[in-house]
Amino acid sequence: MTVSIAHLGPSGTYAESAALAYAEWLRQQTGQSTQLYPYPSIAQTLRAVATGLTEIAVVPVENSIEGSVTVTLDMLWQLDHLQVQRALVLPIFHALISNALTLEQIQIVYSHPQALAQCQRWLEKYLPNAQLAATNSTTEALQYLEQPTQQTSATAVIASQRAAQLYNLPVLASPINDYPDNCTRFWILSLQPPSSGTHTSLAFSLPANTPGALVQPLQIFAKRNINLSRIESRPTKRSLGEYLFFIDIEAPLSAEATQSALQELRHCTETLKIFGSYDIIAASVSNPGG
Amino acid sequence: MTVSIAHLGPSGTYAESAALAYAEWLRQQTGQSTQLYPYPSIAQTLRAVATGLTEIAVVPVENSIEGSVTVTLDMLWQLDHLQVQRALVLPIFHALISNALTLEQIQIVYSHPQALAQCQRWLEKYLPNAQLAATNSTTEALQYLEQPTQQTSATAVIASQRAAQLYNLPVLASPINDYPDNCTRFWILSLQPPSSGTHTSLAFSLPANTPGALVQPLQIFAKRNINLSRIESRPTKRSLGEYLFFIDIEAPLSAEATQSALQELRHCTETLKIFGSYDIIAASVSNPGG
Repeated sequence: MTVSIAHLGPSGTYAESAALAYAEWLRQQTGQSTQLYPYPSIAQTLRAVATGLTEIAVVPVENSIEGSVTVTLDMLWQLDHLQVQRALVLPIFHALISNALTLEQIQIVYSHPQALAQCQRWLEKYLPNAQLAATNSTTEALQYLEQPTQQTSATAVIASQRAAQLYNLPVLASPINDYPDNCTRFWILSLQPPSSGTHTSLAFSLPANTPGALVQPLQIFAKRNINLSRIESRPTKRSLGEYLFFIDIEAPLSAEATQSALQELRHCTETLKIFGSYDIIAASVSNPGG
Repeated sequence: MTVSIAHLGPSGTYAESAALAYAEWLRQQTGQSTQLYPYPSIAQTLRAVATGLTEIAVVPVENSIEGSVTVTLDMLWQLDHLQVQRALVLPIFHALISNALTLEQIQIVYSHPQALAQCQRWLEKYLPNAQLAATNSTTEALQYLEQPTQQTSATAVIASQRAAQLYNLPVLASPINDYPDNCTRFWILSLQPPSSGTHTSLAFSLPANTPGALVQPLQIFAKRNINLSRIESRPTKRSLGEYLFFIDIEAPLSAEATQSALQELRHCTETLKIFGSYDIIAASVSNPGG
């Protein structure tokens, strides 16, 4: 049986690389074959799996430099029944792709805002006068290189080395990310019931804006010696100053301590959502800049 | 003496509206006149005040729908000596600006990614087939309307009603934001020493990834009955899973409870930065969509 996987497209995005890494892991573990389905946005990728159009969705949740992918968190709070089956950490190496022969020729750089931000210092050092322009995905930016106008050689794009290969475009510099340890964590989601792995993710809203309202939920985990590997706040979108909290804990959902913590947590939260319990797969990708 | 104020430009941005609201408040309070200086990015706006090019910078810190403006937080952690002098809350009303006569004609909508996200449902309902394209600011998007090509009537931009007036462009629909209570909090920053107001903002990193490491700082405030109005985590950019925490408390910096809390906080944090203590100004802008 072929497993259908939704991801942010078009072909050449980092999300596609993550989906391919998951597909390869699945093939090795279970022998299952996969089919990838690119979607134009993260929201549409998540809706595809939530409505049963695909069995799996692979979406970015957090980058080590730029932080949370907020659209993923906001959509997960809105959609029901989606469960994280695995987490996958993908190393990110950005390449400067251009038909220009030298950096001096480049006047404008297109990319996704996260990629532009992750190469900010490199751009300030080597292309201080270039204009920066945002696109919906790193791959979408490549369309500006393909228009055969006289501007082409003044244009550059930040995307993956893999995207350059796929579309047969020249790489002018790589890697150009400011921090060598740039990586993105992806979640593999499905409508399958929660399993149990080393990490558990949840989110909650709090009933009222009382002093120390967040202390109580955190103490529930601390007193059981359960480590919080992450806490992220998001606006409830009701009014400025009201938040949801997304928490990752380093404990399986099935563990006795987790179960008793969640039971206690229900009493001091307004809405509590469990996004599942999962293991982390490391997607080892060799440095394509070397 | 004229006070120089840096903000994200070009003219017509919400940051400029916030800077104008602050300038008006300053005029009423002190009689001082002001001069506005637009910068092409938030990072450059903050560097202008940090290096003494301007006396004041007005930057967005948080939107009620889309959450933190992460570049502001990351820059404040990097730059030294900047202090928040005031906070200002600006209501946000987005307008759809286009030369098209009907919505049916529109094929592409340009705007800043935050503005596109804040009008997501409206766009899905009324322009389900339009392509969405990201720009560096809402005002920058307007350039796509001004090119006199045959495409002009197929193009729309999301920006403020004020921007439409400034550039003499037609408004096709307003307000189009999904949530009526859409507002953005701005910080007024300078190199002046910290004053004391109703709110105090700070940020810290934690020494090690130990269970419940964040509980201790939060307890320090809770046991003194100091309310946290906000907590935000940002990656340290050292490795995935290491965070800084940005906290706003509802207490003056000069209060005895705050001083003793900060003293205790120094012992359980790695680096602690105080961003100042300030009052909040409400910028009342009448609904321009009415």
